[in-house]
Amino acid sequence: MHAELFLQDLAMIMMVAGLVTVLFHRLKLPVVPGYILAGLIIGPHTPPFALIHDLQTIHTLAELGVVFLLFSLGLEFNLKKLGRVGAAALVAATLETSLMIWVGYQIGRYFGWQTMDAVFLGAMMAISSTTVIVKTLGELGLKNQKFAHYIFGMLIVEDILAIAILALLSGVASSGGISFGSVAQTLAELALFMIVTLVVGILAVPRLLAYVASFRSQETLLVAVLGLCFGFCLLVTKLHYSMALGAFLMGAIIAESRQLRQIERLVEPLRDMFSAIFFVAVGLLLNPQVLIDYAVPVLVITLAVIAGKVAGASFGLLLAGQNGSTALRAGFGLAQIGEFSFIIASLGVSLKVTSDFLFPIAVAVSTLTAFFGPWLMKSADPLSRLLGQWMPRRVVGVWEAYDVWLQSLSPQNEDEVLLAKMIRRILVHAFVNLALVIAIFVSAAAFFDGVKVYLPQLIRHEGLEMAAVWAGALFLSLPFLIAAYRKLKALSMLLAEMGVKPEVAGQYTVQARKVVSELIPIVAMLVMVLLVAALSASILPPAPLLVGVLVGMGLLLPLLWKRFVRLHSRLQIALMETLEEEGGE
Amino acid sequence: MHAELFLQDLAMIMMVAGLVTVLFHRLKLPVVPGYILAGLIIGPHTPPFALIHDLQTIHTLAELGVVFLLFSLGLEFNLKKLGRVGAAALVAATLETSLMIWVGYQIGRYFGWQTMDAVFLGAMMAISSTTVIVKTLGELGLKNQKFAHYIFGMLIVEDILAIAILALLSGVASSGGISFGSVAQTLAELALFMIVTLVVGILAVPRLLAYVASFRSQETLLVAVLGLCFGFCLLVTKLHYSMALGAFLMGAIIAESRQLRQIERLVEPLRDMFSAIFFVAVGLLLNPQVLIDYAVPVLVITLAVIAGKVAGASFGLLLAGQNGSTALRAGFGLAQIGEFSFIIASLGVSLKVTSDFLFPIAVAVSTLTAFFGPWLMKSADPLSRLLGQWMPRRVVGVWEAYDVWLQSLSPQNEDEVLLAKMIRRILVHAFVNLALVIAIFVSAAAFFDGVKVYLPQLIRHEGLEMAAVWAGALFLSLPFLIAAYRKLKALSMLLAEMGVKPEVAGQYTVQARKVVSELIPIVAMLVMVLLVAALSASILPPAPLLVGVLVGMGLLLPLLWKRFVRLHSRLQIALMETLEEEGGE
Repeated sequence: MHAELFLQDLAMIMMVAGLVTVLFHRLKLPVVPGYILAGLIIGPHTPPFALIHDLQTIHTLAELGVVFLLFSLGLEFNLKKLGRVGAAALVAATLETSLMIWVGYQIGRYFGWQTMDAVFLGAMMAISSTTVIVKTLGELGLKNQKFAHYIFGMLIVEDILAIAILALLSGVASSGGISFGSVAQTLAELALFMIVTLVVGILAVPRLLAYVASFRSQETLLVAVLGLCFGFCLLVTKLHYSMALGAFLMGAIIAESRQLRQIERLVEPLRDMFSAIFFVAVGLLLNPQVLIDYAVPVLVITLAVIAGKVAGASFGLLLAGQNGSTALRAGFGLAQIGEFSFIIASLGVSLKVTSDFLFPIAVAVSTLTAFFGPWLMKSADPLSRLLGQWMPRRVVGVWEAYDVWLQSLSPQNEDEVLLAKMIRRILVHAFVNLALVIAIFVSAAAFFDGVKVYLPQLIRHEGLEMAAVWAGALFLSLPFLIAAYRKLKALSMLLAEMGVKPEVAGQYTVQARKVVSELIPIVAMLVMVLLVAALSASILPPAPLLVGVLVGMGLLLPLLWKRFVRLHSRLQIALMETLEEEGGE
Repeated sequence: MHAELFLQDLAMIMMVAGLVTVLFHRLKLPVVPGYILAGLIIGPHTPPFALIHDLQTIHTLAELGVVFLLFSLGLEFNLKKLGRVGAAALVAATLETSLMIWVGYQIGRYFGWQTMDAVFLGAMMAISSTTVIVKTLGELGLKNQKFAHYIFGMLIVEDILAIAILALLSGVASSGGISFGSVAQTLAELALFMIVTLVVGILAVPRLLAYVASFRSQETLLVAVLGLCFGFCLLVTKLHYSMALGAFLMGAIIAESRQLRQIERLVEPLRDMFSAIFFVAVGLLLNPQVLIDYAVPVLVITLAVIAGKVAGASFGLLLAGQNGSTALRAGFGLAQIGEFSFIIASLGVSLKVTSDFLFPIAVAVSTLTAFFGPWLMKSADPLSRLLGQWMPRRVVGVWEAYDVWLQSLSPQNEDEVLLAKMIRRILVHAFVNLALVIAIFVSAAAFFDGVKVYLPQLIRHEGLEMAAVWAGALFLSLPFLIAAYRKLKALSMLLAEMGVKPEVAGQYTVQARKVVSELIPIVAMLVMVLLVAALSASILPPAPLLVGVLVGMGLLLPLLWKRFVRLHSRLQIALMETLEEEGGE
């Protein structure tokens, strides 16, 4: 009878969700708070009936809502867009998010909460809701205004930061404390994982989906997409990341495929159904008594979210060189928190590191800010004008001087612009290639450890087997190592050209340039090799075998050089083509 | 960690489903057996790994697949289509389904199985898979052939019969035996429930959906539709019917709305995802050992399904006056069983009345017939020609004589056709109205019983309260009673006109006609009143109060007559308009 009760619970949830969505649409109220309210009413904390029998299973199902919400977010996310958003959004969003985490932590400490509660509160307050803001901007007809573009840019950066925060919090919660080292390690691992996933995924997935789409069956395409999404989530959980990260990344990868529009249409109903379940389930968890007990913190945090987000985002955009009106309007647009705050609060609950009151507070604050959101957005324009008039002449003067200084920093003529672009491009390429090399060695080490544990009979002579795996990893890395070497060589030649001026080096100019241009890549490769050796320590063969492997590879290198260069450039072209194609058909 | 394991299970299922759908599409094989096979491989019965941790929850989720499959089936089902299919499909499908149940029961008995196993086997073999057959006909490009129309018609009738079978089996299983009385009662209740649901639903739901669609939000429309579907499922389970019935009926009701196309597009991804989960979950349950042990019954039943369906359907269509080639081709097209056989077998398992081996047999037979299906469909044409040549001259002669006799039965001229149509129409209307009256009284009785149990303090003077409820029910029924009375009056006038011929009644013709035309409706109403009194026995007030209520209503009747006639005709027009509108926009 388990199944029957569960289906009855689900039916009850879908029924109230249906009622609420129609009713709230009629009243022109945001639907998400409606779902939460409905969940509260049918939930166990409010009389007269407990209409839900099996909370556990419903929450399991609600987790699917998180997966679909983040998968859709990934589909809307776009690497091209991220590139276009530019430095302004990056600076402003990072600044604003850091500020909110700090503010949240301070508020938590002020109320005398435990460290973990304060940390999670900070994280909860950091991320605005892309879904809600994009919807509200659309409804108010503001989507094409300049400040809206900055809002979108900052939301994209915030999504990435949110993923990092989720990974960080899991790490922090499991280690019990926060140390700079562990934060840095977590972030480095996350960055490595994301780069490798995106490069491999964008090479493979759009091609696979184009093939599947050639069957012209909606069902096949959908099931294949779901297979990719959930399969990747499975892999991600094996690496101890959250399913949310997996869903988001796979969404971002699939966003680069030509079938994007079609896939979005197919996934939307799933997202809508499961996000409705998710939000109602959030309401089910809500205990109104807690809200009454914590009314003061709720109000303080709500005001802090609004004030902090407006201040942080506006200041960040001003700092990045935007004018006051645009910066303020963008700030007002971002002044809310949404589903990420529940997700973070749920994470705390499921990791059992936060107190029970944090989740209801997250729900209450996000509901309040969701109600205020549209009103703030509408009143941003008059408010910003008012603020502009009030601003003391002196402050305005400082900003104007800052703007002039900022202008002087950026490249002055076309040549410099081109040069800066070139150097950035080379560095990005070299970095991605080296990340792939590191990933290959880390995977090889993990593979060897896995084999050792599960199939111990395969390992006879550990040294030899380690040498074989290590040599295999090195072989696979060679195309990327060569590419990284060539990029660094090009960079160092550029630098040598610019750095070693004939008026200083005199007659030794050519030699000095040659030395510099040879030295930099070799030093970089040496550092790289040491790093790889450290990362693959568990499969590093004993010295004589290692030397053998290295010598062998050294002999092979000249034979394979050209072939690997060609292979790599083909891969790179394929990647670039996929990235540059416009999605949708 | 419950939620995590479940999500991992689901991820595993979606991953293999994605793999299978692409692979089987590539190999041009039907996907459903692929899903089942994939479930078998990752399932607990096959080494090396048990990849699924929580079978229970997966099966709960798979039940959602049944809900969505039947909801979609309901959306494709169409009352108009049912009307157009006509008598031929009705006769043939009823005959064929009854034959298959009988054949299945005999096979079960032959193998010495228990009665319930044999009964469920019969039911399992009765219903072909609408989804699979429609898909196959489409792929073979045969959808517009004449025999395909008969196949569609028979599939629609089979769907209705399947719903009846599900309700019957639940009843049979709970009472432990089969008696004519209980079968008749179950079917009568089901018919009553379906008529009332369809009338009320088609009046209310399309109007509601048109209102919701006016918001122009896909999300709102989808969640409202899901709310209706699941809300109705909830109601249906309270009446001890299966969710499958509720989903199918709500689908059939929503199929009458103008937003049908849009809703189908939104529901399809949900159906595809959950039906994939459903079929993989079917494979998870499969124990290959059972299949080896029961190889002989599986083969016998497979052959019986093919032979029985071909023979039953063809014979039925011949009997209904179709030519041999069409009848045979339709028969070959229907020669398989599908998801309904799993659903019926699962019902037996969940009611704990059947043996364990029945479910794997259902899966094996439906997989085998699904593989043979397209091949049989393609070879139907040559086979039917061959059979036509082999047929002894004598048999052909008998059929030809039967055809002539059948032709002589149908109305000969336009007047008779019109008259037959009119009488049928009046009878249907009277029947529907009386069904509504019965439903009102039954609901009133249930309402009173409910109030008595849950709110005993409300009942002070039982006789008075019963009289009030009964009077309320009678008042609500009056429009339908009046309508039924007027329809019967019209019918009896028609009959009097036709039955009382002047050559027999002579000078008393007018009086005799008057007597007949007055008598029939009064007798019918009396029977009706007695039936209602019996059905509402639990709320029938004591005699003096009853007389009071009846006298009071009798006095009210002349005052309200015109008003009620107008109200009823407005309802009827609204219903007809909805039914006649073409779905889709």
